[in-house]
Amino acid sequence: MSIFRYLLPKKKNTAGVAKERLQIIVAHERTLRGGPDYLPQLHQELLEVVRKYVNVDADAVNVQLDRNEGIDVLEMNITLGDEAVN
Amino acid sequence: MSIFRYLLPKKKNTAGVAKERLQIIVAHERTLRGGPDYLPQLHQELLEVVRKYVNVDADAVNVQLDRNEGIDVLEMNITLGDEAVN
Repeated sequence: MSIFRYLLPKKKNTAGVAKERLQIIVAHERTLRGGPDYLPQLHQELLEVVRKYVNVDADAVNVQLDRNEGIDVLEMNITLGDEAVN
Repeated sequence: MSIFRYLLPKKKNTAGVAKERLQIIVAHERTLRGGPDYLPQLHQELLEVVRKYVNVDADAVNVQLDRNEGIDVLEMNITLGDEAVN
């Protein structure tokens, strides 16, 4: 059982230039219904942390929120810029 | 194709008391070998962000770093305390 093929599934590289990609998944398994839904607020703060380490274009971030089988999931897919942050 | 069965796989609940669980996965697909490996530093900062929203016991955090098929993966599994943070 490997999670790797679910993380960052291969994309066709139409431009011929490989871009690095970053995926952040936050999954919260709730035992009770309700409770504060903090995942929408969380994504912006996570992004600020990641920006300290890698170069993220504002328009290169795709955010999805999902709820399934008692699990709230925040999924962020980010295409990284060419330059690393020092 | 669902990632949900890979996220937070069900555990047997031996104590009879359900705990909420949180899982954070950061996957970085690298196009080049090398480059700074920031994931070990990142995990502590991500935890600080999450602590603003949920109650995390210091000893309830399991961190794994893995590298496979050109993807660096940081996986954090967190058992949440009973009390939510306001």
